[in-house]
Amino acid sequence: MRTQVAIVGGGPAGLLLSHLLHLQGVDSVVLERRSQEYVQQRVRAGVLEQGTMDLLREAGVGERMDREGDVHNGVHLQFDDERLHIPFTELTGRAISVYGQQEVVKDLNERRRADGGKVYFEVSDLSVHDVTTEQPHVRFTHDGVEHELRADFVAGCDGFHGVCRETIPDGIRKVYERVYPFGWLGILATVGPSSDELIYANHANGFALHSMRSATLSRFYLQCEPDEPLEQWPDERIWAELRTRLGAPGWKLEEGPIVDKGVTAMRSFVAEPMRYGRLFLAGDSAHIVPPTGAKGLNLAVSDVDRLAESIVDFYRTGSSTGLDTYSAACLERVWRVQHFSWWMTSITHRFGGPDAEFDRRLQRSQFDYLRTSKAAETTLAENYVGMPKR
Amino acid sequence: MRTQVAIVGGGPAGLLLSHLLHLQGVDSVVLERRSQEYVQQRVRAGVLEQGTMDLLREAGVGERMDREGDVHNGVHLQFDDERLHIPFTELTGRAISVYGQQEVVKDLNERRRADGGKVYFEVSDLSVHDVTTEQPHVRFTHDGVEHELRADFVAGCDGFHGVCRETIPDGIRKVYERVYPFGWLGILATVGPSSDELIYANHANGFALHSMRSATLSRFYLQCEPDEPLEQWPDERIWAELRTRLGAPGWKLEEGPIVDKGVTAMRSFVAEPMRYGRLFLAGDSAHIVPPTGAKGLNLAVSDVDRLAESIVDFYRTGSSTGLDTYSAACLERVWRVQHFSWWMTSITHRFGGPDAEFDRRLQRSQFDYLRTSKAAETTLAENYVGMPKR
Repeated sequence: MRTQVAIVGGGPAGLLLSHLLHLQGVDSVVLERRSQEYVQQRVRAGVLEQGTMDLLREAGVGERMDREGDVHNGVHLQFDDERLHIPFTELTGRAISVYGQQEVVKDLNERRRADGGKVYFEVSDLSVHDVTTEQPHVRFTHDGVEHELRADFVAGCDGFHGVCRETIPDGIRKVYERVYPFGWLGILATVGPSSDELIYANHANGFALHSMRSATLSRFYLQCEPDEPLEQWPDERIWAELRTRLGAPGWKLEEGPIVDKGVTAMRSFVAEPMRYGRLFLAGDSAHIVPPTGAKGLNLAVSDVDRLAESIVDFYRTGSSTGLDTYSAACLERVWRVQHFSWWMTSITHRFGGPDAEFDRRLQRSQFDYLRTSKAAETTLAENYVGMPKR
Repeated sequence: MRTQVAIVGGGPAGLLLSHLLHLQGVDSVVLERRSQEYVQQRVRAGVLEQGTMDLLREAGVGERMDREGDVHNGVHLQFDDERLHIPFTELTGRAISVYGQQEVVKDLNERRRADGGKVYFEVSDLSVHDVTTEQPHVRFTHDGVEHELRADFVAGCDGFHGVCRETIPDGIRKVYERVYPFGWLGILATVGPSSDELIYANHANGFALHSMRSATLSRFYLQCEPDEPLEQWPDERIWAELRTRLGAPGWKLEEGPIVDKGVTAMRSFVAEPMRYGRLFLAGDSAHIVPPTGAKGLNLAVSDVDRLAESIVDFYRTGSSTGLDTYSAACLERVWRVQHFSWWMTSITHRFGGPDAEFDRRLQRSQFDYLRTSKAAETTLAENYVGMPKR
């Protein structure tokens, strides 16, 4: 088998890259370890930045997003029972859309199929070879048959647990990491949202987030231990804790059946560089952010946008400038987003430790600052809707 | 002895309070443990916020400051050898003045003497009594004679090591504290400044600051161990390290004789509340900030401004509203300043620990963000020149 770009990973990053390349006449093959059903159903991020929306629209895959997604012009921030609205659109002229990652994946899969895209699901034994030559290739097994896919480039869109990052030798790959002393207990409930926009709450008991998916499906998170046992969280306890942490005068939490429950550990992770020879990492294979800023999917989209442009430019003009600057250019945004995600986490979570009370006062002072300074609330808003492409 | 306001501490806070009260016809007595010479010569802060300048001018003690002080319209921030200018006046319409704390103290002492103010230096055995009654008093020894000073109010302007804060019982007083794992090696050199404005530098070796006092006197700081032995820092090593950490292309550090050298530990500290009965804390007696944001003196001035207004209002109208809200109103600013001082420290210092490399990337991302976002640089500028009085 031969293609121009071998794409390892069929999540949103890999599928979008394949689609963007196709629009510019570049051929690719997508190799995904999981089944199509699994990828389309796993519950992940649900907030799209303005730039992500714009890109999906321009690429002709934003129609259902525009119809079913819910555009939000701001977000609520809460400290104890005091709620503060950050008006994104008023401050930045930009907005966000609430539209689940799995919906983006469905749209992309459908479009790739309609366009005759080559996407192999349930591949196994995948390995990447010769990326420092001009003829890299990927070996994998599909339907019990071993294949070798030769390509000009390999795109590593295979997530944090994927094999592509590990292809870069230890002496070249540098890893930056922070593990947080807490996790998120996330639930999905079949009930309409109790708020027009997301609520990020800093309560003495810990962080809580009211997010949403649709008019009949809401998503909630509670700060918990990183290894919190789910059995300690019967539904009644979850609702009671959400009422406490999200409580505000005159506000009522609507409750409904909980249909999904899980605990996520929180980490910040960056692997540098994002390019090694003809291998290019994009999305979670190169970086993980804590979900507080809703940035994971958006950062992957930003990587893939740049990678598609660079590859297309190479085929069209022979220039490797885009490819050569890919890693550094991506990493500047990656670190901006790492900082923002860390900061959103730091102002909303209970950290414990000897300075816990001092820290909570600093959190409070930042909440008060956001309430009184247009510059301060603009920094939150412009990062949340996504900094402009540079 | 009897007065309206007994002021414990004859540093800038105590002297300014005494002067502000005098301007409104309220009588006070200032009691200072040190000699006048000591207080006027100790090297301390050197940066005045716009609000501090305005207040000193309005109070008629800004003449020499306006003549000899050096107004700066911005500050330089540096990461490795890359320098970034933050234009305060362009961003906020406000500025700062470089004018030493000891000069402010001289001006205030002179004016208090000219106005017949009662300032006792070198008092000892000072203690504060009955502050929860309407007749508090202060006992002290001066020139070998024991005195009792009765007053309506006691102002605790006696610094971090003073006795006033300790007068508030443990069950009522709550302390918030953070000690930093480093100190500042500060030097004073008889050489003109090598920069038009201050330079805050984040270098892999640690933080450095180029500050200044006058056309012939410069002040420099180097991050060091909190208990760094001075003998390990001969002059040549200091200059070499300053050249390294402050170095930037095309820039030269002017060197000269070092006339003062010392190590300061760094801490953040807040005692709440700032009022107990008829005792009111102001300045360092209630809070300490790391010197990175140049806020200590300015915060003391802000406390004293509010305290003078509240006391005058009480005598004029009988209303205790100002006195009753003094602590909460001061503390909102105190925590804003605590956060800013911590933040300026956090983006410029080497912290060490397991996350050191991750932290340095976050520092770099904040430097890049300041360079590319007007909102971000405005948050630095508006905090540095001082948030408006609320």
